[in-house]
Amino acid sequence: VVVVAVDAMGGDHAPDVVLDGAIAAVRELNVRVTLVGPEDRLRAGLAARNAPAGIDVVHAPDVIDMHDSPVTAVRQKTESSLVVGMRLVRDGAASAFVSAGSTGACMASSLFELRRIRGVDRPALGAPFPTVTGSALIIDVGANVDSKPEHLVQFGIMGSIYMERVFGIARPRVAIMNIGEEESKGNALVQATIPLLRQAPINFIGNVEGRDVPAGAAEVVVCDGFVGNVALKFGEGLASTINSLIRAEITRDWFSKLCALGLRPAFRRVRKRLDYAEYGGVPLLGVNGICIVGHGSSNAVAIKNAIRVGAQAVEQRVVETIAEGVAAASVR
Amino acid sequence: VVVVAVDAMGGDHAPDVVLDGAIAAVRELNVRVTLVGPEDRLRAGLAARNAPAGIDVVHAPDVIDMHDSPVTAVRQKTESSLVVGMRLVRDGAASAFVSAGSTGACMASSLFELRRIRGVDRPALGAPFPTVTGSALIIDVGANVDSKPEHLVQFGIMGSIYMERVFGIARPRVAIMNIGEEESKGNALVQATIPLLRQAPINFIGNVEGRDVPAGAAEVVVCDGFVGNVALKFGEGLASTINSLIRAEITRDWFSKLCALGLRPAFRRVRKRLDYAEYGGVPLLGVNGICIVGHGSSNAVAIKNAIRVGAQAVEQRVVETIAEGVAAASVR
Repeated sequence: VVVVAVDAMGGDHAPDVVLDGAIAAVRELNVRVTLVGPEDRLRAGLAARNAPAGIDVVHAPDVIDMHDSPVTAVRQKTESSLVVGMRLVRDGAASAFVSAGSTGACMASSLFELRRIRGVDRPALGAPFPTVTGSALIIDVGANVDSKPEHLVQFGIMGSIYMERVFGIARPRVAIMNIGEEESKGNALVQATIPLLRQAPINFIGNVEGRDVPAGAAEVVVCDGFVGNVALKFGEGLASTINSLIRAEITRDWFSKLCALGLRPAFRRVRKRLDYAEYGGVPLLGVNGICIVGHGSSNAVAIKNAIRVGAQAVEQRVVETIAEGVAAASVR
Repeated sequence: VVVVAVDAMGGDHAPDVVLDGAIAAVRELNVRVTLVGPEDRLRAGLAARNAPAGIDVVHAPDVIDMHDSPVTAVRQKTESSLVVGMRLVRDGAASAFVSAGSTGACMASSLFELRRIRGVDRPALGAPFPTVTGSALIIDVGANVDSKPEHLVQFGIMGSIYMERVFGIARPRVAIMNIGEEESKGNALVQATIPLLRQAPINFIGNVEGRDVPAGAAEVVVCDGFVGNVALKFGEGLASTINSLIRAEITRDWFSKLCALGLRPAFRRVRKRLDYAEYGGVPLLGVNGICIVGHGSSNAVAIKNAIRVGAQAVEQRVVETIAEGVAAASVR
């Protein structure tokens, strides 16, 4: 049974939703969970919830919050839930770590504790995004800014390996996010990266535009973390706005409300398909250990699914596979 | 009556939708239209459509297509519909120009023919985006890549003036697109731009994240054109995907179809609110003349609305106002 360490203090609704998510995970999935955080508080929370067996607690008194500078926080708060959890993975006491806390602090802490896979200069967050035909992995969505061309190439290689192994897609199509279909388009980073991607041992198909991603034009979409983060969050905000607009319109009068009632199952299926909580968390690819970064506003379902993603990554030997793939590609 | 020149050969569905859009514009709006393109073909198209009075044709035999290099095309194809149309504005024969053709060629041609407003280093495309509370202008959405901090500041000033004058918003809130709320977040460009925006004569409110834009957190959102273009097109693709998903789900069985029938007016209102065609086109701000860039896949409604946007910009003296505002700001 895979042991997943979970940052009990990470995210906007910690530790309550983390406790709920961990309990759901051990009940529904074949995993054990080690909660990392203030021991007394967590044990009280578990007792109040009649938690089942399969949940351990490891004490960590400190908390890193979103306003701390990531590198400083990780260096100074060595007894924070984030750093202690990462050490559990480093020392083999857990096989994966899940945190809905600060992305920057996760990145910094994973670099210090787990270290990079040989051949990877910068770890990256790969976010699976629902498309009409399946999923596309957008990599990077915020672990790095001001990336260099060789970093983007490594993102492409890691993303390709991840989609092949974890999503079972043979020869995933890898594209670079650009502002036009033509080769000549793009900024200096994209222009310098395209020739390198052509030489990489991946199925590189060229440019995709923002609108092609939800349409399913590629399985791996490479971009700098600033661009990926803005696009993903913009999409998230837009989906939520569309949801509000529809809700407002279909509840304007009793007849609309009645019709909407009949469509509730349909709406629920659409929402489920688009809900980030269904994906749970996003793997930080390129470090020597499984680290799943959850959304700051994660609910219990998202935490449970992030634990599932972490356990799957262990079973699918994501770290070893990426290490082998990067070594074979030897693009540095 | 304002005369709007329209690139009859710009866009994926030219010249048919352009002819339809121009006819709708002269029928519904208080404008005259000058169609620019191959004269015989356009006259035949107008005759076949029983076009009303108020539409002139100016001959331009050449066409610039999406695959031409913008600068080269604009220099070599001096008799293209794009260049001839831009010259009509330069020479005062028209007060605004509308094109759904290549954005890069529009940018290049406007720089050559109309030239920049004094104090503006780089013109920018400002796209109004629907929010839950109204509209946000995202500037730039693709006229520039690899922008410098001083360019972003000019985008902020131009965007603020535009939203105040054209959308009637007093002291528009100007924000910079970033990947976190904290000041310390962002890439090198954003970090270097924030202090300059603080000093600019605008209502700068700091960072917004991608998800805050549809939620209505600011009226002007400043970003490099690469970032703005990816975000906007990603949002467009996502909205279209959500539309397909909902359509598929609500037509799965006869009961759902029946309920959906009752909600058609509600769905239509939501779609109208999100439809880019309602906005028509996006002004290229910072050049000495009104130039409205339409979406490549513009339909007739989009062309008509782009003509409306162009005529409004003339009436609202957008060029003069931006020139005065930039001179007053004297940020160079």
